[in-house]
Amino acid sequence: MTKTEMTAMILAAKEAKGKRWEAVAEGVGMSPVWTTSACLGMNSMSADQAAALCETLDLPDEVASALQACPHKHWDKTIPTDPLIYRFYEMINVYGETMKQIIHEKFGDGIMSAIDFSMDIDKEENPAGDRVVITLNGKFLPYKSW
Amino acid sequence: MTKTEMTAMILAAKEAKGKRWEAVAEGVGMSPVWTTSACLGMNSMSADQAAALCETLDLPDEVASALQACPHKHWDKTIPTDPLIYRFYEMINVYGETMKQIIHEKFGDGIMSAIDFSMDIDKEENPAGDRVVITLNGKFLPYKSW
Amino acid sequence: MTKTEMTAMILAAKEAKGKRWEAVAEGVGMSPVWTTSACLGMNSMSADQAAALCETLDLPDEVASALQACPHKHWDKTIPTDPLIYRFYEMINVYGETMKQIIHEKFGDGIMSAIDFSMDIDKEENPAGDRVVITLNGKFLPYKSW
Amino acid sequence: MTKTEMTAMILAAKEAKGKRWEAVAEGVGMSPVWTTSACLGMNSMSADQAAALCETLDLPDEVASALQACPHKHWDKTIPTDPLIYRFYEMINVYGETMKQIIHEKFGDGIMSAIDFSMDIDKEENPAGDRVVITLNGKFLPYKSW
Amino acid sequence: MTKTEMTAMILAAKEAKGKRWEAVAEGVGMSPVWTTSACLGMNSMSADQAAALCETLDLPDEVASALQACPHKHWDKTIPTDPLIYRFYEMINVYGETMKQIIHEKFGDGIMSAIDFSMDIDKEENPAGDRVVITLNGKFLPYKSW
Amino acid sequence: MTKTEMTAMILAAKEAKGKRWEAVAEGVGMSPVWTTSACLGMNSMSADQAAALCETLDLPDEVASALQACPHKHWDKTIPTDPLIYRFYEMINVYGETMKQIIHEKFGDGIMSAIDFSMDIDKEENPAGDRVVITLNGKFLPYKSW
Amino acid sequence: MTKTEMTAMILAAKEAKGKRWEAVAEGVGMSPVWTTSACLGMNSMSADQAAALCETLDLPDEVASALQACPHKHWDKTIPTDPLIYRFYEMINVYGETMKQIIHEKFGDGIMSAIDFSMDIDKEENPAGDRVVITLNGKFLPYKSW
Amino acid sequence: MTKTEMTAMILAAKEAKGKRWEAVAEGVGMSPVWTTSACLGMNSMSADQAAALCETLDLPDEVASALQACPHKHWDKTIPTDPLIYRFYEMINVYGETMKQIIHEKFGDGIMSAIDFSMDIDKEENPAGDRVVITLNGKFLPYKSW
Amino acid sequence: MTKTEMTAMILAAKEAKGKRWEAVAEGVGMSPVWTTSACLGMNSMSADQAAALCETLDLPDEVASALQACPHKHWDKTIPTDPLIYRFYEMINVYGETMKQIIHEKFGDGIMSAIDFSMDIDKEENPAGDRVVITLNGKFLPYKSW
Amino acid sequence: MTKTEMTAMILAAKEAKGKRWEAVAEGVGMSPVWTTSACLGMNSMSADQAAALCETLDLPDEVASALQACPHKHWDKTIPTDPLIYRFYEMINVYGETMKQIIHEKFGDGIMSAIDFSMDIDKEENPAGDRVVITLNGKFLPYKSW
Repeated sequence: MTKTEMTAMILAAKEAKGKRWEAVAEGVGMSPVWTTSACLGMNSMSADQAAALCETLDLPDEVASALQACPHKHWDKTIPTDPLIYRFYEMINVYGETMKQIIHEKFGDGIMSAIDFSMDIDKEENPAGDRVVITLNGKFLPYKSW
Repeated sequence: MTKTEMTAMILAAKEAKGKRWEAVAEGVGMSPVWTTSACLGMNSMSADQAAALCETLDLPDEVASALQACPHKHWDKTIPTDPLIYRFYEMINVYGETMKQIIHEKFGDGIMSAIDFSMDIDKEENPAGDRVVITLNGKFLPYKSW
Repeated sequence: MTKTEMTAMILAAKEAKGKRWEAVAEGVGMSPVWTTSACLGMNSMSADQAAALCETLDLPDEVASALQACPHKHWDKTIPTDPLIYRFYEMINVYGETMKQIIHEKFGDGIMSAIDFSMDIDKEENPAGDRVVITLNGKFLPYKSW
Repeated sequence: MTKTEMTAMILAAKEAKGKRWEAVAEGVGMSPVWTTSACLGMNSMSADQAAALCETLDLPDEVASALQACPHKHWDKTIPTDPLIYRFYEMINVYGETMKQIIHEKFGDGIMSAIDFSMDIDKEENPAGDRVVITLNGKFLPYKSW
Repeated sequence: MTKTEMTAMILAAKEAKGKRWEAVAEGVGMSPVWTTSACLGMNSMSADQAAALCETLDLPDEVASALQACPHKHWDKTIPTDPLIYRFYEMINVYGETMKQIIHEKFGDGIMSAIDFSMDIDKEENPAGDRVVITLNGKFLPYKSW
Repeated sequence: MTKTEMTAMILAAKEAKGKRWEAVAEGVGMSPVWTTSACLGMNSMSADQAAALCETLDLPDEVASALQACPHKHWDKTIPTDPLIYRFYEMINVYGETMKQIIHEKFGDGIMSAIDFSMDIDKEENPAGDRVVITLNGKFLPYKSW
Repeated sequence: MTKTEMTAMILAAKEAKGKRWEAVAEGVGMSPVWTTSACLGMNSMSADQAAALCETLDLPDEVASALQACPHKHWDKTIPTDPLIYRFYEMINVYGETMKQIIHEKFGDGIMSAIDFSMDIDKEENPAGDRVVITLNGKFLPYKSW
Repeated sequence: MTKTEMTAMILAAKEAKGKRWEAVAEGVGMSPVWTTSACLGMNSMSADQAAALCETLDLPDEVASALQACPHKHWDKTIPTDPLIYRFYEMINVYGETMKQIIHEKFGDGIMSAIDFSMDIDKEENPAGDRVVITLNGKFLPYKSW
Repeated sequence: MTKTEMTAMILAAKEAKGKRWEAVAEGVGMSPVWTTSACLGMNSMSADQAAALCETLDLPDEVASALQACPHKHWDKTIPTDPLIYRFYEMINVYGETMKQIIHEKFGDGIMSAIDFSMDIDKEENPAGDRVVITLNGKFLPYKSW
Repeated sequence: MTKTEMTAMILAAKEAKGKRWEAVAEGVGMSPVWTTSACLGMNSMSADQAAALCETLDLPDEVASALQACPHKHWDKTIPTDPLIYRFYEMINVYGETMKQIIHEKFGDGIMSAIDFSMDIDKEENPAGDRVVITLNGKFLPYKSW
């Protein structure tokens, strides 16, 4: 079973049961963002996490196996078109040099890891219009010299 | 005076005075991320903010004019190469569909604004290695139907 | 049912019944442009609108569900080839800097929203050849500073 | 004198005199959008229009000659990055097929001309936030058969 | 029936009957170039023309319907590879600026229409090797000012 | 002297003398299209032709040398943006397969040469709007087998 | 039968009979390089050549018809990846300007034809390692002036 | 002195002395193709070869140093535009798979080296038009297994 | 049987038997990296190696034939997206000029072969986190002059 | 002083003194590869390292400052052309999936760091031709789950 087939089965089961990602994540005991990314084939689960997910959504063992496979993270290169995703691409390009200046000033020469990394997505209620709040948290990795 | 010349003068004055972006921002009375982005030519300042910045760094009036001009936000299309910036591009592509699923589930059909938007960058001390924490905060904009 | 299958069913039913987009839109109680875009999978409908459309064209419930899903707005990047669509791409590039100058002069630093946005397409009769009149109406969004 | 040098001289004179594009256009006796596009080098003026512009802004004869030259309309291919301009690119791609369906249904097989074409940009005041209203008006050109 | 299926049926019938494009065009009462382009899905026919073509090649009514649909003119962007077609691309690029200079000098600022346009392809016999003669005929469209 | 410098000198002399391309070509004794292309650096002249051109426009000997050099025909790959030139690119793509079908049917397997090739540009007066008539004439080259 | 299906049938028959390209070419009475290119769909055969090939490999008449069709020479644009093919691309780019200098010096302004062209591939035995020897032979085509 | 400056000096001296590449190569004691490629900055010379070239063309020592530097072989990626060079690109793509089939059949799995490689360019006189004959000679390199 | 089908059968058999690449390689008597690359279709095996692999994994003879075929090494051009593979692309670009400087200084003008080449991948245990050690070993090939 | 100016000064001083990278690195007390990469502007030095380098090559203090700045690692996207560098790009693409399979099997889901990373380049003498040996050593980073 490929990751693509696995995702299709998970989405169908989730819709059939009327569960939201928060409920799915609670069943796995992990955060909604990470659980969703694993279900969409962009992260791998441990055996226990995969079993818990399959129990939550009544899915067969092959789904659990597919969830544990190391994913090939593949995407369409260049520029995303969906407006919701494009806006994040725009933020990176408008604020990329700013992030570089401030991180180097606070931490020195190195990068923010995209591997030892977590993300949370929250809703901030606001009378002028609710706001999306996304928190990115990554380990700072200094460049090695040798 | 172009935005590029303006940025060069600000960076030179900042280095000569040995000021960090936090001190510059404090002089303007705004956040470090936004202040930096305006100095790098990616946002425009009000007349008062521009005057405060020029006072903080002892810069002439033309810099204040240039800071108030509406920027043309231009960047190299496709894929950034600097490792620090590339990792953000990678995060968007690995988690793009996840963000789409979760934002639509929490808010409905629409996007997170990149215009009515703010960003903060903080340092989280951690014995296993300090962490970079970036908070993105944008208004949710529902699609209009007519 | 995917958006692509949904669009195929709507187009087939529309052709079989010999209805024009204006008649379809009237059945939904919305404008022809917005109704067409939702049928082509580029906007989502409310439950009531979707039900009205399915009644107008005698389509099953799955079409109504598909119409309510948040679309993934995907298109071929770079440059459109169809002459009718290319001419709009040409207009943007010929007049892009002009629009930027005039909008900034009239409204200040910000953008015209593509989300809180509507479009109308009309026919202006003219003895020297009829004219297409397209009206774009979008909320001005000023950049936030923080 | 190249179109690029011409544009730089016009922008400098306009800023020195503190004139808005509307005032410049009034001096020429044409609309603000078209006048701006000619000043930015994307359209050519007649001898009279060019003379009027140079009188309005106290500019030398070489500017008038440059304004009359047929421009080479050149732009960066692929995808614009400035957020204000990108949103128009996004509109075309989200609504491109919709425009094609509706124009063909109203007019038959053909295109909306980008040559026999005019554009206006207006401000619609609105308590929920002012709106930008752009009107595109182009002759319908039916495909010739032979 | 899509345009692609339509083209496949026409080519098969044409080959089965051993007819050349000239004979097909004669059956429709139009020129060979235009008739071929409509059969290849790049132009639309009137009801009468489509009926004549179907009679000439003994094809069913769905082909006639497909011939009348407004085509989506889609091609592979960037650079054609087939040597016969590439040479035309090369001609445009070698002589593009020359055509621009001469057309502007003869006609003023504007373009040669690709919509109100016809093309003929002839064979010129020549003892040093026969020659292909292609005639492009398009209406000159002056830019509108407003 | 490079071809670019040569072209700049020729264009300046042509404008100073108020000569049209037809008059320049007459001085050289060749056609306007070919003469223009050589002046723009896309073809090379014989010593006699180059001398005649320099006499016609009162230009120094270095221009004559530059006119005789074999040009490096270089252009911006992918898609032209100027509307006048783009329309020719569009014609090739809309009619490319049609030209291939008809040339193969009339001549067999081979191509129309872009080297043993000439082009003429004429004005056809027409009460409904003058028309541009371009004639392409190239030797048919059959593929060799061995 | 498409060229792709034709190639698949030829390769299968060739492998089943254990014939090398040299033997196939001998059956057709042509060179191995040209015969292979026609079998791979990049050149067309005469009726006699196609019949001989089908006899050599015991293939049906449809293969002979497909071999006679004028091919659409289509390839993946930009840069080949297979190391054997990439090295030829590298040779052209390293030696492209050299070939241009030497051919112009020996022949004048013009090109080496890729149509009136043949290629041979030989093995040169060498104790330090055998060598591949490829001979390209093309007619020189001078540019026409008019 | 960069390779670019070196090439400019060599070409100027060669033109001033009226020497052809064959004469230059004879002065160096190497072949015309290799000598030209080194002068164009695409290969490096030994100290003796560089000294001989400078003597032949009366050039200073810095040219000899620049000729010995290891070049950075840089070219414009994707597709060459000059017709003479493009035709070689076309040959590789039309015959690429053919070369792969025949070389593998004659030599086994491996490549033809572009490093242990030589090229010659000759003129074959022919009453039907002279022909360019290019010979590529490269060592066959079998893939190593381990 | 294509290389793609071959790879799918090998991976399925490997997973069913619970064998690691090291065990598979031991069965073939070659290194794990080379064996894996041949199984993934990027190198060809000798008849004996292919037979040994099929015996190790109980696979039919067609797999052995497919393993011996010369592969067409094809990959997605431009930039890899999977983070594990991208990091290698980043290393080449960050250290590319460094490798060029040091190899030329140690060996002279030439390249490191990617054909007469081997690679090993090892695990270096380390209390601060295990490390991946990759050794690339390629023959130095000096440029030939002639 | 920019990194580009810094590199030019270092290379000139290194050449004037006739020092090899190994000697420069010895002066800094670091490895040749890392020292070279910092001199080429792709890594930053500590104050002590930069001072040692400037002493070794008799360079002024501004060079030391420039060496300490955090670099913007910028390179030409897509595909390198220099044959020495291209071969590394080819290795990654030929062996990319192999590296992914073997690293995941040995270490689990994660990547090899390009930041906590070192590289060494050695010469292995060999009677059949010397060999380049490159060792890449990077920390394994497992994906975080949360």
